[in-house]
Amino acid sequence: MKINHLAVVVENLDSAMGFWCDALGLELQHTEVNNEEQVKIGFLTIGESRIELLEPTTPDSGIGKYLAKRGAGMHHLCVEVEDIDRAMQHLRERHIELINEVPKTNHEGTRYCFIHPRSTGGVLVELYQLAGK
Amino acid sequence: MKINHLAVVVENLDSAMGFWCDALGLELQHTEVNNEEQVKIGFLTIGESRIELLEPTTPDSGIGKYLAKRGAGMHHLCVEVEDIDRAMQHLRERHIELINEVPKTNHEGTRYCFIHPRSTGGVLVELYQLAGK
Repeated sequence: MKINHLAVVVENLDSAMGFWCDALGLELQHTEVNNEEQVKIGFLTIGESRIELLEPTTPDSGIGKYLAKRGAGMHHLCVEVEDIDRAMQHLRERHIELINEVPKTNHEGTRYCFIHPRSTGGVLVELYQLAGK
Repeated sequence: MKINHLAVVVENLDSAMGFWCDALGLELQHTEVNNEEQVKIGFLTIGESRIELLEPTTPDSGIGKYLAKRGAGMHHLCVEVEDIDRAMQHLRERHIELINEVPKTNHEGTRYCFIHPRSTGGVLVELYQLAGK
């Protein structure tokens, strides 16, 4: 297992990159807009992991509402696993609450699910199984 | 640069390890008590990084007050750099607010400083330069 990414909600992607890239020195891999989640994402490389900066494209999106309620800051931790089905089964057997009971698949073929912060001690945790693994 | 650790504030270290170790499958490296910070820490290995679980040993400690005010959850992100003096100078030149202007040194010889969340977009960021580097 490894940290795939740490997601950070930001007010504005360009301003946020002023800190993370220009001041701290991380490299911007690319940006993309996720229309389903209504969010613009900046992908920054850090060692074997990434920091993903999430700027809502509408205030009504999940991330937009989070930003209005909680302010900018760390949003979720994504842990990369080898076998997401086995990991989810293992979690269910320990009565850990999953937000989606069946893995979703993104446009890159990554299978993912979220674990409810109620079951983790306040941290929204995402699991990733990369395509082809 | 890489993620050295992600620090998570927990109500109770043993309960928290029920999720992070037993359910999620991370390995506990060791635990230690930091008397200065009044916190008990569980160090979990995840790839090249760690998750550090912080349980306050008194409600009056910094972490105890954080827990009472904000609840359990992600507390700070620690980024490992090669040269902390150069990194801090670079940040100062960009008017980034440092919490300690001079690096502190822990019992392992790691030099560290904190960057104020006001300057990062809501994330408390720690910098580490490991001993001997």
